[in-house]
Amino acid sequence: MSLLSLSRGDLATFAAQHRSDFERWLGDLVNIPSVSVDPAHAVDVRRCADSALAILSGAPVTAVQTQLIETGGYPMVHARLSANPDWPTVTIYNHLDVQPADGDDWRTDPFQLTQHGARYIGRGATDDKGPAVTALLGALSARSAGVPLNVAFLWETEEEIGSEHFASTLQAHTELVRTDAVVVSDTIWITRGKPSSPAGLRGLLPFRLTLRTATNDLHSGITGGVVRNPLAELMQVVSACVDGTTGRVLIPGFYDEVEPLTLQEEDAFLSSGFSVEAFKRDHHVDSLRETDALEVLRRLWALPTFEVHGVVGGYTGPGVKTAIPPAAEVKLSSRLVPNMTCQKTLDRIATFIGERFPDVQVHAEPGLEPYRGQASGPLADAVRSAYRFGFGVDAVFTREGGSIGAVPSMEQILQSPVLFLGLSLPEHGYHAPNEFFDWEQAEGGIAAFAALFAELATTLRH
Amino acid sequence: MSLLSLSRGDLATFAAQHRSDFERWLGDLVNIPSVSVDPAHAVDVRRCADSALAILSGAPVTAVQTQLIETGGYPMVHARLSANPDWPTVTIYNHLDVQPADGDDWRTDPFQLTQHGARYIGRGATDDKGPAVTALLGALSARSAGVPLNVAFLWETEEEIGSEHFASTLQAHTELVRTDAVVVSDTIWITRGKPSSPAGLRGLLPFRLTLRTATNDLHSGITGGVVRNPLAELMQVVSACVDGTTGRVLIPGFYDEVEPLTLQEEDAFLSSGFSVEAFKRDHHVDSLRETDALEVLRRLWALPTFEVHGVVGGYTGPGVKTAIPPAAEVKLSSRLVPNMTCQKTLDRIATFIGERFPDVQVHAEPGLEPYRGQASGPLADAVRSAYRFGFGVDAVFTREGGSIGAVPSMEQILQSPVLFLGLSLPEHGYHAPNEFFDWEQAEGGIAAFAALFAELATTLRH
Repeated sequence: MSLLSLSRGDLATFAAQHRSDFERWLGDLVNIPSVSVDPAHAVDVRRCADSALAILSGAPVTAVQTQLIETGGYPMVHARLSANPDWPTVTIYNHLDVQPADGDDWRTDPFQLTQHGARYIGRGATDDKGPAVTALLGALSARSAGVPLNVAFLWETEEEIGSEHFASTLQAHTELVRTDAVVVSDTIWITRGKPSSPAGLRGLLPFRLTLRTATNDLHSGITGGVVRNPLAELMQVVSACVDGTTGRVLIPGFYDEVEPLTLQEEDAFLSSGFSVEAFKRDHHVDSLRETDALEVLRRLWALPTFEVHGVVGGYTGPGVKTAIPPAAEVKLSSRLVPNMTCQKTLDRIATFIGERFPDVQVHAEPGLEPYRGQASGPLADAVRSAYRFGFGVDAVFTREGGSIGAVPSMEQILQSPVLFLGLSLPEHGYHAPNEFFDWEQAEGGIAAFAALFAELATTLRH
Repeated sequence: MSLLSLSRGDLATFAAQHRSDFERWLGDLVNIPSVSVDPAHAVDVRRCADSALAILSGAPVTAVQTQLIETGGYPMVHARLSANPDWPTVTIYNHLDVQPADGDDWRTDPFQLTQHGARYIGRGATDDKGPAVTALLGALSARSAGVPLNVAFLWETEEEIGSEHFASTLQAHTELVRTDAVVVSDTIWITRGKPSSPAGLRGLLPFRLTLRTATNDLHSGITGGVVRNPLAELMQVVSACVDGTTGRVLIPGFYDEVEPLTLQEEDAFLSSGFSVEAFKRDHHVDSLRETDALEVLRRLWALPTFEVHGVVGGYTGPGVKTAIPPAAEVKLSSRLVPNMTCQKTLDRIATFIGERFPDVQVHAEPGLEPYRGQASGPLADAVRSAYRFGFGVDAVFTREGGSIGAVPSMEQILQSPVLFLGLSLPEHGYHAPNEFFDWEQAEGGIAAFAALFAELATTLRH
């Protein structure tokens, strides 16, 4: 089956006819405050999974199979709209848990879906409940058009808290969740009207440095000058690892696995709609380490980082108290780019520090491997065609500076390629007050998903 | 009048006869929790000043003049045992406020003076109520021996919170508190049996560095690598200022005003009873930046420092959260040695940082100037003789690594030399649980003060 058998007009009609389903289902999900980071919302996270299960179970197709999968933490929802053994299977990944919605900046109740014109406002509207409902309608439209593809859904509820139980749960249910490809819809375009799909994600290696030099606070007059200062020593360690001003990592070999961008990748980055000025405005920053657009993009998407996130130890009240603390801790992380690994990076950091500062302890926290996606080949071409079908313009393959832990887990455990068909826009406000999704993205998204399924029915045919 | 007219035996008799006065007065003061840092004890600080006023007013001498001096904060107590216009006047400085006595390590009620053998246990027993009562008895013994010297007392109640109102109050009462010399009794010998008197105090320049690079937390995946990291930058600033491992300050000219020690000073330091091993044991530290005794003493008493005391900004909970904070603050201080000044040191630091890191703000907090005391000349000789008389061994002139803000204030405002006749021992536990004073130090101290007054009656004679 090829794209030619789907008509963009038919898809527009389908979307218009099902807009009320879209709004009802999105409301069912947004109106439940599934804030996974807040234990006070534990019941709501489960209620949201139940609500999603009800939406999927009630989908107007024959033989839908749904299952709530317990993970040890919050559950996952799995559903298959069809299970024809002659057809390939594609699984759509979304998440149902959301960020908190504290603070006074919300102009509407964040947990009551509010429609203003074509905007659907509420916590989770764009991250990631709106894209989930859009993908479902895309699958239903493909189903009604007879696309010979089994579409499954895997909706987790621990994404905002690190997907702690995701990999082990997939491992325990490999037969249930088996698939030929995965499509993730949880990424953000660079700008409206320019569809973009990440062909790579950065990984994340969080770690802590600790140093103890005494058993209790020391008087900086009586002992100062002779006793060690763990804060000053750890600052020296960090400054030996990274140039704090430029961000350049000084650890030998740190960049060895980084692959240079191809000219095609650079061209795609530059044509993604990215603007340094828009970036500064969106993030409310006046000065950056770098202002050349390509260099900025290289640093965001194609180079690793070494960031300091916090310091524990010593006095933090008003003014200055002059005790010398007995111990200190620095919280750090590195974002990793494809071809790097958490273990090798950690080894380099630990060796560098261990040789120069033998008293300093390096503590690794659970990491996320980087992910290399596909910017060429039949699967990337299917994504490209799908966006063109849905939104009428060519898509570009960019990268994602952030990390989605579930992606390398799915690739490895499900032994499937992972594609990205994201629908969110920067102005939708991931994690921000007054988060929204909009019908333009939903309508185009339904068509794009339908087209992607049609393409993959051919590409993945057994 | 010379020392020859006082007999050590008579002083021993005087001390033994007045031991009950010593114990009663010390109990009157220690049993009041005059914790100046804790607003909950505000009433107690004033009660303690009133109690001290009653003790001084009731002293068995004719014509004692006492006054409570309001400061705008907690009061000062001033008293003159005599006011003979033909005699010189010496003022004894002590403080009545104490450190908190929290925690479970106290074996007795810290605010109930407890006697175990020759030990007097309670918060403030050695810092600084015991030395105050000892000096009073020394003055009464000198009075009864007919020493032609007016002795006055200046007891403040804000020492543990930085003597904020001390200088301005002296300025406002220069006539009331006029004197020919000041004796401070609030310092610690290096070891029992080896009287030592500081011939210099370090000053203190507390300051803060702040840097703002954004308006809110930034996502280290979406923005990391391009946006600035204020914690990493401030760590680089600190590491440019000081070698965190050795403590060596890297700011050009920082050490320019530091005067090298004379051979006599080095000899005095080395014969003070200082032991590197005892220092490590007392402060519960295993490793030091330096282990040679003379180098250790140079760093403690005769070299400036650059210490990091705390960091504000970013995440400080368990594990690692990977946001990049929008701003950070580092709390620091330098101890200064004689011939350095707060202003010149601050200027050097601010210039160095301003040239290299123009976005970083340097905020100075109120500082304390260093103080150069006297290790030779008639006043120093008087201190030497007094200790020899009281304790039977020669005293050494050392330095104090800490800062006593009142000392340079008194020298400058009262235009008087400041001498030190401290009586506390390291094992007495300044600021520590189970703080105590002991009768051996009190008895020797009464004799030493009497001898000092006799010496100064001659030395300061108009």
